[in-house]
Amino acid sequence: MCGIVGYVGKQKAAAILIEGLKRLEYRGYDSAGIAVLQGGQIDIAKKTGRVENLVKEAARHRFTGTTGIGHTRWATHGGVTDANAHPHASSDGKFALIHNGVIENYSGMKKFLAGKGYAFSSETDTEALCNLIAYHYAKEPEPAPDSGKSRFFESVRRALMHVEGTYGIAALCTDCPGEIVAARKASPLVLGVGDQEYILASDVAALVSRTQNVVYLKDGELLHITPGEFSIITQNEEDVDPVVDTVSWNIEAASLGDYKHYMEKEIFEQPAALENSMRGRFSEDGSTANFGGLNLTAAELRQVDRIVFLGCGTAWHACLVTEHLIERYARLPVEVEYASEFRYRNTPLDRNTLFFVLSQSGETIDTLGALREAKRKGYKVLAINNTVGSSIARESDGGIYQHVGPEIGVASTKAFTSQILIGAMLALYIARMRDMSYNDGLAYAQAIKSVPDLVRRVLETQAAHIRDIAKRYAHYQDMLFLGRLSLFPIALEGALKLKEISYIHAEGYPAAEMKHGPIALVSEKCPAVFFAPKGEIFNKLVSSIQEIKARKGKTIVITTEGCEFPPGVADEIIHLPDCHEAVLPVIATIPVQLLSYHIALERGCDVDKPRNLAKSVTVE
Amino acid sequence: MCGIVGYVGKQKAAAILIEGLKRLEYRGYDSAGIAVLQGGQIDIAKKTGRVENLVKEAARHRFTGTTGIGHTRWATHGGVTDANAHPHASSDGKFALIHNGVIENYSGMKKFLAGKGYAFSSETDTEALCNLIAYHYAKEPEPAPDSGKSRFFESVRRALMHVEGTYGIAALCTDCPGEIVAARKASPLVLGVGDQEYILASDVAALVSRTQNVVYLKDGELLHITPGEFSIITQNEEDVDPVVDTVSWNIEAASLGDYKHYMEKEIFEQPAALENSMRGRFSEDGSTANFGGLNLTAAELRQVDRIVFLGCGTAWHACLVTEHLIERYARLPVEVEYASEFRYRNTPLDRNTLFFVLSQSGETIDTLGALREAKRKGYKVLAINNTVGSSIARESDGGIYQHVGPEIGVASTKAFTSQILIGAMLALYIARMRDMSYNDGLAYAQAIKSVPDLVRRVLETQAAHIRDIAKRYAHYQDMLFLGRLSLFPIALEGALKLKEISYIHAEGYPAAEMKHGPIALVSEKCPAVFFAPKGEIFNKLVSSIQEIKARKGKTIVITTEGCEFPPGVADEIIHLPDCHEAVLPVIATIPVQLLSYHIALERGCDVDKPRNLAKSVTVE
Repeated sequence: MCGIVGYVGKQKAAAILIEGLKRLEYRGYDSAGIAVLQGGQIDIAKKTGRVENLVKEAARHRFTGTTGIGHTRWATHGGVTDANAHPHASSDGKFALIHNGVIENYSGMKKFLAGKGYAFSSETDTEALCNLIAYHYAKEPEPAPDSGKSRFFESVRRALMHVEGTYGIAALCTDCPGEIVAARKASPLVLGVGDQEYILASDVAALVSRTQNVVYLKDGELLHITPGEFSIITQNEEDVDPVVDTVSWNIEAASLGDYKHYMEKEIFEQPAALENSMRGRFSEDGSTANFGGLNLTAAELRQVDRIVFLGCGTAWHACLVTEHLIERYARLPVEVEYASEFRYRNTPLDRNTLFFVLSQSGETIDTLGALREAKRKGYKVLAINNTVGSSIARESDGGIYQHVGPEIGVASTKAFTSQILIGAMLALYIARMRDMSYNDGLAYAQAIKSVPDLVRRVLETQAAHIRDIAKRYAHYQDMLFLGRLSLFPIALEGALKLKEISYIHAEGYPAAEMKHGPIALVSEKCPAVFFAPKGEIFNKLVSSIQEIKARKGKTIVITTEGCEFPPGVADEIIHLPDCHEAVLPVIATIPVQLLSYHIALERGCDVDKPRNLAKSVTVE
Repeated sequence: MCGIVGYVGKQKAAAILIEGLKRLEYRGYDSAGIAVLQGGQIDIAKKTGRVENLVKEAARHRFTGTTGIGHTRWATHGGVTDANAHPHASSDGKFALIHNGVIENYSGMKKFLAGKGYAFSSETDTEALCNLIAYHYAKEPEPAPDSGKSRFFESVRRALMHVEGTYGIAALCTDCPGEIVAARKASPLVLGVGDQEYILASDVAALVSRTQNVVYLKDGELLHITPGEFSIITQNEEDVDPVVDTVSWNIEAASLGDYKHYMEKEIFEQPAALENSMRGRFSEDGSTANFGGLNLTAAELRQVDRIVFLGCGTAWHACLVTEHLIERYARLPVEVEYASEFRYRNTPLDRNTLFFVLSQSGETIDTLGALREAKRKGYKVLAINNTVGSSIARESDGGIYQHVGPEIGVASTKAFTSQILIGAMLALYIARMRDMSYNDGLAYAQAIKSVPDLVRRVLETQAAHIRDIAKRYAHYQDMLFLGRLSLFPIALEGALKLKEISYIHAEGYPAAEMKHGPIALVSEKCPAVFFAPKGEIFNKLVSSIQEIKARKGKTIVITTEGCEFPPGVADEIIHLPDCHEAVLPVIATIPVQLLSYHIALERGCDVDKPRNLAKSVTVE
């Protein structure tokens, strides 16, 4: 949520900042702004709405400076206005500040500063911090030239000592051309080390067009960029030796290419993305999976009596699928909790419990909070996440990277299927340690390996058909998604996807629960999407569909090739190739991704930037 | 689902059958019909729609006979038509049959009978069985007068030997005035033994106006009513000694009294109903609860490492509340599963696990199926249910009766609050065995005892206020219900209630999950109901409300007396009295019951008989 970018180098900063903001826009798009240091002054352009609005505004400013910061906002406190947009300036004009996170004690801070003569022009917590930096700067003597200290840096550090809350910040000072001071606490920041330039960002997507060499900031660290060099020091004034990592994907991975939307691109690149998720993760004998990064021996894993999976939103759905697969194939009890609830619930836990947290971005604050709570209780916490160097990747005891490349579409697609594919591989790995034979393992592993081809087949054979269906269903305001067992979470995910990008009120339910209440919604105005693949409970599912039809609801049925339905039961049929049950959830997800994508397009919605949402939820 | 009634006595049957059907109408109301035996013939009146339609139709028949059967239907197979309505007649005109349940092998049966010359005029499975009875009757020789056997009874018994599926049936035969043959398998039947008359019904509600002496039929039993006597014989021809029970409530309990709707009555009688749920269930020292019917000693309960709760719909929400309370106060891990999913999921279970199933009616087929599955696995299963003598009460190893009297409104109210009150008492009982001090137990028990007064206070002080709010919000088509921890299930329940009776698409979410997707729905067209009571996470809840307000959503906030909100955050405020956290879920339920009730009235909906629904879901 909210995007940060900063630039120090030889080029004009404004164009680079704006390019970065465009790439960050998926993280929040209420308003955007940039501040550029030029001629000893800070010039700020900011505007509500998309970055496009800012481009026009910036053109009028004719920015020329080569040091600057920029921000896209997702409003938490204070409405969406130009005044509340970032960057904010201190009332003496000396500082500009951008900020992600929440400063909980800002109102006291504001009162104190108002007493000292500082003025405020916004409702934000950020402006209070900016003035607090100015206050410390004014108080702070110029350090001795040989002290190695900077007055700008020291004022930021001192101001932050008074902050309660979370932040990723970047500041400019009119006295310090070519300098940026940045700091983080629970809000990500990464420094790109380019050719005679530095790009600071909340997300590597904003900087990979200029460099793939990056330094991830940790909580409690402050960064000082000066012309030609940078240093990292902790809040307690300890020097940090920076580690330069290489980002494994390049700018093409984060570009649209020939696609119209990131969501479309990410749906269609799933065969390759899923291939990447499984690459190198099968045993030599081909009968099980293995994961290098778990930091857990097979013997240690055998001691585990129960696994708890934590996640939010789409990742929570992936947890539910994984629960089903591990319980079914490995016969190991699994619990799933909302990460946000787990943080505060103080769940009673068994001794030999292992935790997994799932988060594409690795920055989801609720999930990070849950991870920390489980670790405080002394449990081992592993992560499944897609972002190398993310907070969750760093703070977990080990885990599995998804390797699907950057996901830009706000509605998660490839990250979700990759999470459940990894879940299926994890189930195989644990099952083979406990309950599953060599031969069953071979067949299961073969099924996993066939996933990219199966997904490709669904995309090739069903996409046009689903687009046609979407045209017929785009005008509805309500929809139900129904499935059972491992496809119940896919029903939840299908409903969430549609809700997120088309604003149709879609809701997922276990199919048999429908008659215990939600069936009241069913009418000619509320169609139902039904997962009814072949299998033991196929007849029960057909009965449930008939109960919908008896109430005049339209039905879109997602089923296995070869399954037959009584006449009049399915208004639309989408076929999935026959496959191993362990990979069915992945395959069954593709049609609902396409359905929500095409329905949203039909309704004229911005699929990559749905209203109210932001990628990677970094506020509580 | 579906209601059955039968009468043999001195009175005209039709009026009594219709009165019974009116009392059963809440169990299904697609169509209704009666069959009366008179002058050696069976005369049938049946009609789609409410029982009122049948009344007009019946008037034209001028029924005079004193033996008859009647039925209200909730369609499963076959549309809602006059032809598909029950009773069904055999094509030779000798038999009439009413049936609840599903005959799975009816199409083979139909083919066989068509080959023998029997004709069919409906799409139902029931008609096939009726003709099968006629077929056996035609084949069956008249038994010797001293054999004690009846040809009518024998043909029903033999026909049922060929049935796969579930049933509660009642049949008439033109050769047998004053006789009814009935049988059950997984669908409830109860015989009322009156003064020179018998009333058969699927539910005591249909017969308490005539008698409180009842005999509950068990699975596999057949009942033969003849003038002046009745006998019960199993499918395997073993005689059964009938046990006559007394129904503890009388007709007033199942009547509207001064209220306009059963739902209103049941909301307002909650203080008394909850008093009944707790009566006699406190220890003498006042520091804990106790339950006579658990059939589990304290020592046995101490050996339990985990409890699994199973339920459907509203009862599933009650399971979630109870999970929270037991985990919080007793520190014993609890799982909750949808009963319908548990039946087929083969969940891996720990050895020392105890099961609880929750069902108001005690007849919910999904829950009954789950109970049986857990018992087959050798686990002890206890029940919380409201219906003495129900299938679930009989088949469980013990349990807790709710004692709230009959619940007639299809949308559950008093049964839900009673379930969570009992859940809170169960949490106290187990907590006192494990973790809770004498003094904390005293305070907790006091809090439970205060519930009827607290509920009364909410009803008295908030009902008019909530009716006003309902007027302002009745026109919306979408609504969100948000809560955390023990109030998250109440958010689910509030949403379900509104959905069931007003057809507004309402959805419940844990408040912090909103920003992970559902917030896309928020706009001026989608208000949110927010549970934000005082407590540790009050500030987090206020932040979530602000995120809704920043997106122009209206907010109805349910909070504790004395809590303050920043200006502009809450569009409507509903106050709850300050109370112990263990009873907060009960208290917080009252406002959402009233809100959904009044919104539904404003929209002109039939709150007691919402579309598509039926009380007590006895089909899968």
